Amino acid sequence: MRVFATIDHHDHHCLELDEGELIPSWEGPDRADIVDAELLARGFVDVSVPGPLDPALIARVHAPDYVEFLGSAHARWVAAGNVGPCAMSNGWPARRMRHLRPEGIVAQLGYYSFAADCSIAEGTWRAVVDAARTADAAAQHVAAGSRTAFARCRPPGHHASRDQFGGYCYLNNAAIAAERLRASGIDRVAVLDVDYHHGNGTQDIFYSRDDVSFCSIHADPKVEFPYFLGHADEEGISLGQGANLNIPLPHGTGPDVWFAALDEGIAWIDGRGADALVISLGVDTFIDDPISQFRLTSEDFTRLGRRLAEMGRPTVFVMEGGYATEALGTNMVNVLDAFAL
Amino acid sequence: MRVFATIDHHDHHCLELDEGELIPSWEGPDRADIVDAELLARGFVDVSVPGPLDPALIARVHAPDYVEFLGSAHARWVAAGNVGPCAMSNGWPARRMRHLRPEGIVAQLGYYSFAADCSIAEGTWRAVVDAARTADAAAQHVAAGSRTAFARCRPPGHHASRDQFGGYCYLNNAAIAAERLRASGIDRVAVLDVDYHHGNGTQDIFYSRDDVSFCSIHADPKVEFPYFLGHADEEGISLGQGANLNIPLPHGTGPDVWFAALDEGIAWIDGRGADALVISLGVDTFIDDPISQFRLTSEDFTRLGRRLAEMGRPTVFVMEGGYATEALGTNMVNVLDAFAL
Repeated sequence: MRVFATIDHHDHHCLELDEGELIPSWEGPDRADIVDAELLARGFVDVSVPGPLDPALIARVHAPDYVEFLGSAHARWVAAGNVGPCAMSNGWPARRMRHLRPEGIVAQLGYYSFAADCSIAEGTWRAVVDAARTADAAAQHVAAGSRTAFARCRPPGHHASRDQFGGYCYLNNAAIAAERLRASGIDRVAVLDVDYHHGNGTQDIFYSRDDVSFCSIHADPKVEFPYFLGHADEEGISLGQGANLNIPLPHGTGPDVWFAALDEGIAWIDGRGADALVISLGVDTFIDDPISQFRLTSEDFTRLGRRLAEMGRPTVFVMEGGYATEALGTNMVNVLDAFAL
Repeated sequence: MRVFATIDHHDHHCLELDEGELIPSWEGPDRADIVDAELLARGFVDVSVPGPLDPALIARVHAPDYVEFLGSAHARWVAAGNVGPCAMSNGWPARRMRHLRPEGIVAQLGYYSFAADCSIAEGTWRAVVDAARTADAAAQHVAAGSRTAFARCRPPGHHASRDQFGGYCYLNNAAIAAERLRASGIDRVAVLDVDYHHGNGTQDIFYSRDDVSFCSIHADPKVEFPYFLGHADEEGISLGQGANLNIPLPHGTGPDVWFAALDEGIAWIDGRGADALVISLGVDTFIDDPISQFRLTSEDFTRLGRRLAEMGRPTVFVMEGGYATEALGTNMVNVLDAFAL
């Protein structure tokens, strides 16, 4: 399996608001390092650096003003005299407030985000661009005829909507991969999101389209981030009606229930007739994940890889969450290893 | 001038997210202490403790589920094992997300707020209740025939909407005072908000009504908190069409422009034919305010008090913002002193 990655993400280390404290983000540089080390240790030596960013592809996924904002936000934050090392807002457009784009940098940080678990450090944009390039390159590899590829992205992307960051995500790598597959002439793409958290950003981006189906298996948003999207009754709108499937599961969900949900998602994707797959591969469903409440074991990730291989479709893996750092490499590579067999 | 106050606000000291740092809130207990000391020093010795909370009155201003949430939030936060001393969310319902009320405490903190500049400490609810009682009592005093009264409220209230906290505000004291005036048989009430920040909560609460007019003079939300409400084109809806006047002003606004805006607001209120006034009295328009960008002097607050007295209406003063702690007492009491003459 070809792996795409860059190591220019190390200067992306942010602060996040968690349990009423401002702490170094759970989504730190060590996550990618550990996956990289495990990949090499287990013989994934076919590694490529991705090509340059394709602005036209990004523009199919994200609003131009949002992309411009992300690229300039930290410099504007510093220029405005803010003292904290990471740019973050303190106000968001809530119920009955207006979504007019404001002018100030702090105000725009609120306008372009939905969370304070995620901020913008000096090195964030470079890492974000690299992750987007990585997802694009992996999708190109599969579009060119390969069975699979792994986009070892950091930061992750599935929470990033068309014009909002949050949940450690800025540009939506999985959506970028899906758009590349579509732009390469693949008619029907399905994104299967197995991260513990709902892929609200991916859902948002494709919600009114029928060419990219989206299925997410995740912790119930009634009690889990991102809280305000990911319910079972969200089925898509307009052309996309019926092209969105959410399977929210309760805290404490173990392998039996989780794999039954996976079977349901796979059957639904089979019914949609997808020609290629993008897997938003989060492994924070792991029993020891420090911020999650499911109970999958490391062996279950091998089972997941096998099950995905049985789908028999060209498949782009895009790395999303997973915060049990010690086991992260094992869990992530277990999926890839089992798929690649 | 009768002053209403309690001193049970001291256990309300919160953390706020400001410039990417989590700091003790600018809205601290010392603010009220300094105003109390200045009131006594300048002969405001007619001080009363307010009566009990009137739940029926609060229910005219705020959603019942929101009030229940505020009262139980900190205990639920602790019971859920969160480590920070103050309850605050890390996610908010943004564009194209859903406003379904979630179940978890962190999720509900996002659902019921629009900012992270404001959190819920163990002592917050007691102070919030006291501030609401204080505003009610001052309004009752005026409704009973007195020319004026001062509700020395802490925390402030004007950012609190029908069901959302933020901007240091939880229950909307000015709206509670206005509702008490209405419930006492006063037909037409006007709320004039002279705080540096837009009174988005008060606007929200009365936006579709014509019996309570709302005028706010404030820093332009394009660059200043609360960012997403307070524009000049917000004129009310439904029955309230024409009963809302916002006068946003740029950073750096000095006395000439500010008092011209005040004259505009007063003329508009005269046109509305108000029988009584509630003044949302913030003095963060002061030139040395640490988080604001207007240029009023301490003498200008005397001028403000005189101008409000010229309006010739029964007037309830409700304390809102002001963070230049050393000058806060002087500035606040300058308004009251000039009005009381």
